[in-house]
Amino acid sequence: MAEEAAVRAQADTVRRLKQDKADPDEIAKEVAKLLEMKAQLGEDEGKHKFVLKTPKGTRDYGPKQMAIRERAFNAIISCFKRHGAEVIDTPVFELKETLTGKYGEDSKLIYDLKDQGGELLSLRYDLTVPFARYLAMNKITNIKRYHIAKVYRRDNPAMTRGRYREFYQCDFDIAGQFDPMIPDAECLKIVHEILSDLQLGDFVIKVNDRRILDGMFAVCGVPDSKFRTICSSVDKLDKVPWEEVRSEMVGEKGLSPEAADRIGEYVQLHGGLDLIERLLQDPKLSQNKLAKEGLGDMKLLFEYLTLFGITGKISFDLSLARGLDYYTGVIFEAVLLHQENEHVEEPVSVGSVAGGGRYDGLVGMFDPKGRKVPCVGVSIGIERIFSILEQKLEASEEKIRTTETQVLVASAQKKLLEERLKLISELWDAGIKAEMLYKKNPKLLNQLQYCEDTGIPLVAIVGEQELKDGVVKLRIVATREEVNVRRESLVEEIRIRTSQC
Amino acid sequence: MAEEAAVRAQADTVRRLKQDKADPDEIAKEVAKLLEMKAQLGEDEGKHKFVLKTPKGTRDYGPKQMAIRERAFNAIISCFKRHGAEVIDTPVFELKETLTGKYGEDSKLIYDLKDQGGELLSLRYDLTVPFARYLAMNKITNIKRYHIAKVYRRDNPAMTRGRYREFYQCDFDIAGQFDPMIPDAECLKIVHEILSDLQLGDFVIKVNDRRILDGMFAVCGVPDSKFRTICSSVDKLDKVPWEEVRSEMVGEKGLSPEAADRIGEYVQLHGGLDLIERLLQDPKLSQNKLAKEGLGDMKLLFEYLTLFGITGKISFDLSLARGLDYYTGVIFEAVLLHQENEHVEEPVSVGSVAGGGRYDGLVGMFDPKGRKVPCVGVSIGIERIFSILEQKLEASEEKIRTTETQVLVASAQKKLLEERLKLISELWDAGIKAEMLYKKNPKLLNQLQYCEDTGIPLVAIVGEQELKDGVVKLRIVATREEVNVRRESLVEEIRIRTSQC
Repeated sequence: MAEEAAVRAQADTVRRLKQDKADPDEIAKEVAKLLEMKAQLGEDEGKHKFVLKTPKGTRDYGPKQMAIRERAFNAIISCFKRHGAEVIDTPVFELKETLTGKYGEDSKLIYDLKDQGGELLSLRYDLTVPFARYLAMNKITNIKRYHIAKVYRRDNPAMTRGRYREFYQCDFDIAGQFDPMIPDAECLKIVHEILSDLQLGDFVIKVNDRRILDGMFAVCGVPDSKFRTICSSVDKLDKVPWEEVRSEMVGEKGLSPEAADRIGEYVQLHGGLDLIERLLQDPKLSQNKLAKEGLGDMKLLFEYLTLFGITGKISFDLSLARGLDYYTGVIFEAVLLHQENEHVEEPVSVGSVAGGGRYDGLVGMFDPKGRKVPCVGVSIGIERIFSILEQKLEASEEKIRTTETQVLVASAQKKLLEERLKLISELWDAGIKAEMLYKKNPKLLNQLQYCEDTGIPLVAIVGEQELKDGVVKLRIVATREEVNVRRESLVEEIRIRTSQC
Repeated sequence: MAEEAAVRAQADTVRRLKQDKADPDEIAKEVAKLLEMKAQLGEDEGKHKFVLKTPKGTRDYGPKQMAIRERAFNAIISCFKRHGAEVIDTPVFELKETLTGKYGEDSKLIYDLKDQGGELLSLRYDLTVPFARYLAMNKITNIKRYHIAKVYRRDNPAMTRGRYREFYQCDFDIAGQFDPMIPDAECLKIVHEILSDLQLGDFVIKVNDRRILDGMFAVCGVPDSKFRTICSSVDKLDKVPWEEVRSEMVGEKGLSPEAADRIGEYVQLHGGLDLIERLLQDPKLSQNKLAKEGLGDMKLLFEYLTLFGITGKISFDLSLARGLDYYTGVIFEAVLLHQENEHVEEPVSVGSVAGGGRYDGLVGMFDPKGRKVPCVGVSIGIERIFSILEQKLEASEEKIRTTETQVLVASAQKKLLEERLKLISELWDAGIKAEMLYKKNPKLLNQLQYCEDTGIPLVAIVGEQELKDGVVKLRIVATREEVNVRRESLVEEIRIRTSQC
């Protein structure tokens, strides 16, 4: 059969790529193709087998992963709240037309729902467009909010590197008409606080401005109509070398080689206030209105960042472009510089972990009268951060608890199920986190072993003698110490010993 | 045009139903139809207007709603953690075939994704089937977990009554082979704790067992093949009177009138231990193996619930059937008895707020070798609870804060933006929740007004004199008291005054 031969050929391709230690993304792509071909073949043969898996590009979070995820979320939410943000939530799907025309070339990655009658729907692609829709719909002109939720992209997943089709975004945005660069500076401060707090290693936050890019394109001789597409090419510079980007500009996009070379000189530049000053004196750029505006604001931004004491991690980088269409001013992206990992020789490249910028026109696209609400915001790419935290935790062999149980209610003899049920009910009603084994007559050893396995620090043991004496034997798992505690003092004793006050 | 006439006729229908004060669900259905007809008409005419809305049956949560939602979630999560549950998360969509054959008649309400190449996907319909898939996939035979996430049903929404197409479920399940009724009793204890904690008003938890139902059907003369469909009819008894259910059984489902009448006698029964004892003596039921097993376990359950001290809110109710196919043992459902509300004359019926049961066969449906993992669990219907909490809050006129900001950094004179930025940065770095207005030179009055509006309790005011003296003026918004605090003591002073220790 031709299909089977094709599958075998594809399997050979995968094998060869693995032998050649090819780019992991490349391998992942070919493996995915192989799996789909196999699945297709299975279906065609009519002997369809049920596959026990999650959809491509998605994953379950088990209790351990959830514990890590909660740590990261807590750090991020604390920061957002520290900056006075409110929180909102929006539906996981939007009317299809709400998303139309907002994402440029990336629109092909949007998940659509099947037309089952009624409205045409799509899964949200990010949290920014739903936020703008929310503002326009409720005529809100002034808000500082965060939103943590899953978004969906039919991208080629590279899950070992934290790239999924379903992933969380943690967004913080400031909407409203304010004095220049004050909210923008706060967004960068937030990224700095979160990345420092999470201790992911050294990082740099690249900053640029769409107006500087557009001004630069103009003075380099790029025709207006090609601004966005040339901008997309520049956006690839963090992944591919300049020579390739240049040949895309000249070959595919029809830019003159001279214009491309002029761009090439600019996009190599990165620095701080000194570079901004230099470009403000640049004979060509300083003549361009947009570039001048952008550079003036960039200078102001750096002044504020100096007051925040964070310029050490900020790099004004002319090669930063950002893919999305809707940005209109400052743009930024945080990247981890290198990731230490004892188990692998090569540093794991995790790419960008946060990004954002100013989008002053997006809300106006939803308003029937086109009224604009200026916005600036940041999105934390939490999945990549999870990947790193997970690897770190595995390397450290730290034992992570997945429950908060304070005490196990146990019995030393048989026929004490009723007494255990009575005691655990008292503890629950007093707000103590308590568990018991769901056995009528569990062995004491098994009950103690359960505490060892799950990290429960205390055992409250009921026995015939204790019941007579009106006490409970409290065992401290770590030290194996045992004390008799009067029943009426038990709750207090557990609280003190687990220092929950 | 025929279409326009149809729209006008539909509009008349809606008007008439409203005048007649018809069933709100009915009205909502006809309004939805009208809107869709209008939308259709707009599209057909080619002058399609962009509609600024969320998809049908969904809604945004603004900051106030989120504050309410977080309160409810906190109560629920605290309870789940108190009972030692771990937490997991699964993707929002599953392979379509994962959901196939699990929901009986309700399957038509599943949202499918569009086939854009690759796998066929559906949005999850509940959290139970994904949980069973997770257990089978990871070969887990023993876990106590909770899962809080959105599920999706293409139902007719009745949003004023808390019925949506996208809604949260809060699930707690215990999987594993244990001694009978211990985990089942814990699930009921959890429902009792959560509903008591949320103070939603009086409630009752109805309990039954699929084995008792099946035994009852058998002794009433229902043929085996009609068990599930007759069970679906019984399930409607909480909404429609017996006479209607009876005529569905006899008319549509072809049951003999005698069998229906015998069922009619049983399903009127509800009570406690006394009823269980009586039925154990029932000459017909006691002869049926399934019913006897179910009644025996029900008796055990009530003994455990007595130890938990919660039988006062539990009603063994033979009319409780639950819609879903996968239940195999105990089933239960919590309903609010009536909802006090000062603003409306009639008590708002909110129906069931929690439900669950035992499903010992579901995991086996996913396991290649059919290995079973017994499970029992409960799902809290949080949207209806939100609706009630929202109404309560509106009625109480309690002012609810949507941020946690402790202090506003303000200035009394102009040209102090830099000083405000320096101070707020210090506060953020010390973990203080602080805001400032994004203006170069805001008026003091506006800054104080902002605190009044948002409930910020403190204002840290920088001025020329304070800067010279090395102090900050701290204003307590509620009392208008002002004290000078040395800059180095400011963080400590704010912590004490906002009692965050």
